[in-house]
Amino acid sequence: MASAPKANAVVSQSGGPTGVINASLVGVIEEAKKHAEIKNLYGAIHAVSGIVKENFIDLKKIPADVLQIVAASPSSALGSSRDKPDAEYCKKILDVFKKQDIRYFFYIGGNDSANTCFIINNMAEQAGCELRAFHIPKTIDNDLLITDHCPGYGTAAKFVACAVMGDDLDNRALPGIKVDCVMGRHAGFLTAAAALGRHRDDDGPHLLYFPERPVSMEKILSDVEAVYKKLGRCVMAVSEGISDTDGITWAEKITRTDDHDSHGNVQLSGTGALADYLAMRIKAKLKVKRVRADTFGYLQRSFAGLQSEVDAREARWCGRHAVQYAMSELNGSVAIKRTGTGKNYAVELFRAELANVAEKTKSMPAEFINQEGNGVTQAFIDYALPLTGGLPKTAYLGNIKNG
Amino acid sequence: MASAPKANAVVSQSGGPTGVINASLVGVIEEAKKHAEIKNLYGAIHAVSGIVKENFIDLKKIPADVLQIVAASPSSALGSSRDKPDAEYCKKILDVFKKQDIRYFFYIGGNDSANTCFIINNMAEQAGCELRAFHIPKTIDNDLLITDHCPGYGTAAKFVACAVMGDDLDNRALPGIKVDCVMGRHAGFLTAAAALGRHRDDDGPHLLYFPERPVSMEKILSDVEAVYKKLGRCVMAVSEGISDTDGITWAEKITRTDDHDSHGNVQLSGTGALADYLAMRIKAKLKVKRVRADTFGYLQRSFAGLQSEVDAREARWCGRHAVQYAMSELNGSVAIKRTGTGKNYAVELFRAELANVAEKTKSMPAEFINQEGNGVTQAFIDYALPLTGGLPKTAYLGNIKNG
Repeated sequence: MASAPKANAVVSQSGGPTGVINASLVGVIEEAKKHAEIKNLYGAIHAVSGIVKENFIDLKKIPADVLQIVAASPSSALGSSRDKPDAEYCKKILDVFKKQDIRYFFYIGGNDSANTCFIINNMAEQAGCELRAFHIPKTIDNDLLITDHCPGYGTAAKFVACAVMGDDLDNRALPGIKVDCVMGRHAGFLTAAAALGRHRDDDGPHLLYFPERPVSMEKILSDVEAVYKKLGRCVMAVSEGISDTDGITWAEKITRTDDHDSHGNVQLSGTGALADYLAMRIKAKLKVKRVRADTFGYLQRSFAGLQSEVDAREARWCGRHAVQYAMSELNGSVAIKRTGTGKNYAVELFRAELANVAEKTKSMPAEFINQEGNGVTQAFIDYALPLTGGLPKTAYLGNIKNG
Repeated sequence: MASAPKANAVVSQSGGPTGVINASLVGVIEEAKKHAEIKNLYGAIHAVSGIVKENFIDLKKIPADVLQIVAASPSSALGSSRDKPDAEYCKKILDVFKKQDIRYFFYIGGNDSANTCFIINNMAEQAGCELRAFHIPKTIDNDLLITDHCPGYGTAAKFVACAVMGDDLDNRALPGIKVDCVMGRHAGFLTAAAALGRHRDDDGPHLLYFPERPVSMEKILSDVEAVYKKLGRCVMAVSEGISDTDGITWAEKITRTDDHDSHGNVQLSGTGALADYLAMRIKAKLKVKRVRADTFGYLQRSFAGLQSEVDAREARWCGRHAVQYAMSELNGSVAIKRTGTGKNYAVELFRAELANVAEKTKSMPAEFINQEGNGVTQAFIDYALPLTGGLPKTAYLGNIKNG
């Protein structure tokens, strides 16, 4: 392994923000300060677009007390971008790297960002210039391969769990049917997190639907009816990415005029359309007066002051380890391995190959979803609960025996 | 003043839940245990409907450790009801009170609940039976008269402030226009709370619209355009109850087919309709690609683990004081008087007349809204910030001089 060059480094953040992507950034900054090999650590503003524009800030100059606040802040403190660099874009990035003597590249993002690292790293190699490119994982969807779980997920999961815990108590107080729509177009991990706060037998969410399990409207309606008949109320959480049994997403179906002209002449669009549509269908079928819908939206990824401690700690470690790896390795993606479960929850970090993370996504494993396809298993709870860093306790007195 | 009778007491919770209505309940329970005049303290399940059904639980038997969890839990632990009792309903309540030797009635709720207390108290007086009826205030809307502010508001305000703080950082990272719709049909206090987390010059929300200030679509669009031109982004918070200059609410207008057929043939309904409609109009006018909308929904009133400490403490005091007042007074509504401001924030409680609180509502004072009608004044910040019990600090590095 070649010794680490003495050169500049750049770090940036890509894609949708999370509650702990800044903790990873601060991990990179803290660790970079320890290594004389890294001369200047530049923060590229708005990700790759900031690199090609050479829009950099000097991250080593930021006072330690400000860094603590950055680490605790949601969203991407360096700004983000949705740009997916093609070969020409990557060439421009490399040109800047050469010009600015940048030989370390730390990129915090999802599978697209891992791919950008991979491409730029390959291009650099072909061009004969040394570049150490490291991907630091973040998503709220938890859909990256190799890593046991993804920084950002635990905090978003905590938000969704706390939201549905409260919403379920609200639904006990004023019974009816409640539809909550959760982020996650292709993976159901975040929707599943709605179940993490359950601790009484009849706690909601009573029904969960995931992108991994296509479901017909008939099935949803009969599920809701069964719960409502039994409990006199029903709280359900649905992923924004759920699809019909033909594989077409419900979000797409409800924007087609022909489908819902027969169901009340309401054409739905916008953020809340899926939840509102489900509420409308449930109301029409079950004749229940009180049917409500909420779509959690951006609050799931950028809510101030609600980090999971575990998630924030691990995100910071991932940032630090990326810099450590760069001292001895040429490239890689930081990944988490779980080494202890339950109360003995513990993790180790390791270096994964970029190619194994780039562009790939993970769905929820089948063993996390119940047989009916409308709930989670204990295996999921055991997997996800430690990541939230503890959830608040709640009580309800209306049914004292389960108080 | 007649001495307090030795008799049973009933407490219940009415209307929409809040994050601290259970703190008030626990305040009543804790204080009732201290007074031998109160024999049994019954909790009526689902408010007045639980009273007429004699659906009671014995609240003095609940262990202290469970009470602590109840006090920290959102939503109404005794269940709630939307029933507005008429004279016949109140007669049934009085019959149960007589039968069960209930001579103390503590009712935690909004102005309707104050009115129910008022009516039942009058009926009891006319019937010659002694009843001590006390209203304990709660709303997230903060729209009750007499009291300086209302338990429940501070916690909901904290939620909205944290949500918009995070959302504004999200909007910095991925710039565009964001519309956030906040609860409050008639009063803008909660929407105004979106501004409480601002601490940098260019922090959002940049625009706020309240039910107190009718606003045309032209004004909204030109406001947004001006902010977007200046900052390259815009975060706005609108109350669900905003109306057009003709006094008709925008929520009502957008469900009329004739109004929006000319604006894209989209008929909107459901929870997210107002925010989605505004996003659609803004996108059509400004030709900005990234326009997003969220509607905060029930999360504002029932989110687990996010109480304002100040709000929870005051809510508990209100519960305790209601019981104390009942030892020497025949009826009343508990109210808060602010005795210190800023860092010396302090309050005293006092007994208000039921008639002065019943059925009445308060709007935001004119001095809390800026001249343009699209923002708040420092007077509002000074009023509301102490009620949130402190907000998280955040940082953004993209523009380091305001980091």
